[in-house]
Amino acid sequence: MISKVNLKEKLSLFDDRWSPKIVGELNDSYVKLVKVKGEFHWHHHANEDELFLVLKGRLLMKLQYQELWIEEGEFVIIPKGVEHLPVAEEEVHLMLLEPKSTLNTGNVRSERTIDNPAWI
Amino acid sequence: MISKVNLKEKLSLFDDRWSPKIVGELNDSYVKLVKVKGEFHWHHHANEDELFLVLKGRLLMKLQYQELWIEEGEFVIIPKGVEHLPVAEEEVHLMLLEPKSTLNTGNVRSERTIDNPAWI
Repeated sequence: MISKVNLKEKLSLFDDRWSPKIVGELNDSYVKLVKVKGEFHWHHHANEDELFLVLKGRLLMKLQYQELWIEEGEFVIIPKGVEHLPVAEEEVHLMLLEPKSTLNTGNVRSERTIDNPAWI
Repeated sequence: MISKVNLKEKLSLFDDRWSPKIVGELNDSYVKLVKVKGEFHWHHHANEDELFLVLKGRLLMKLQYQELWIEEGEFVIIPKGVEHLPVAEEEVHLMLLEPKSTLNTGNVRSERTIDNPAWI
């Protein structure tokens, strides 16, 4: 059996922030949902491009030489190797798409590192 | 420079149906947008899993042994090898995620085959 995924329904299942949940897998990548608020920390992913689609709110994506406001219904792709810092003044709901090998904190290990994100 | 992508803005740039447009690339995959109405034809993709996220309308995804209605804000992932037939009673707007090697008509070559989808 193949199941569909309702994004709002999945988002209603958790409240913790900066902790991506897996909602789908395809071609060695995961689709994840995450709620964020506040500032993450600078990091990059050595081998993985990462897509951020804003489902609710607006995300400030700081890069080394530019800043991008990503609004609801917009996405940005951060290529491998590019330092980035996601910031959310208010809570933001995101859909992420990234290879299964992706660590949320990239090259930096911190108290925010999630080694084995859970399926919901 | 890294650019963001606004889905509605990109969707406003074309009207032709069953003709996916590329709006992003990551990890050897493309993000595409497509407008569909009516019935496609049965096909499968030998080596590619394919994600369909409904941005507007509702899509009926027929599979060999089940049917799934995919509503706005929902997605379904069709694994490689699985025969599927997308049907749209009214126009549906979709975001697709699939490997660059994916041919829209999969194992079937028809007048609907698009060999080189365009970037918009």
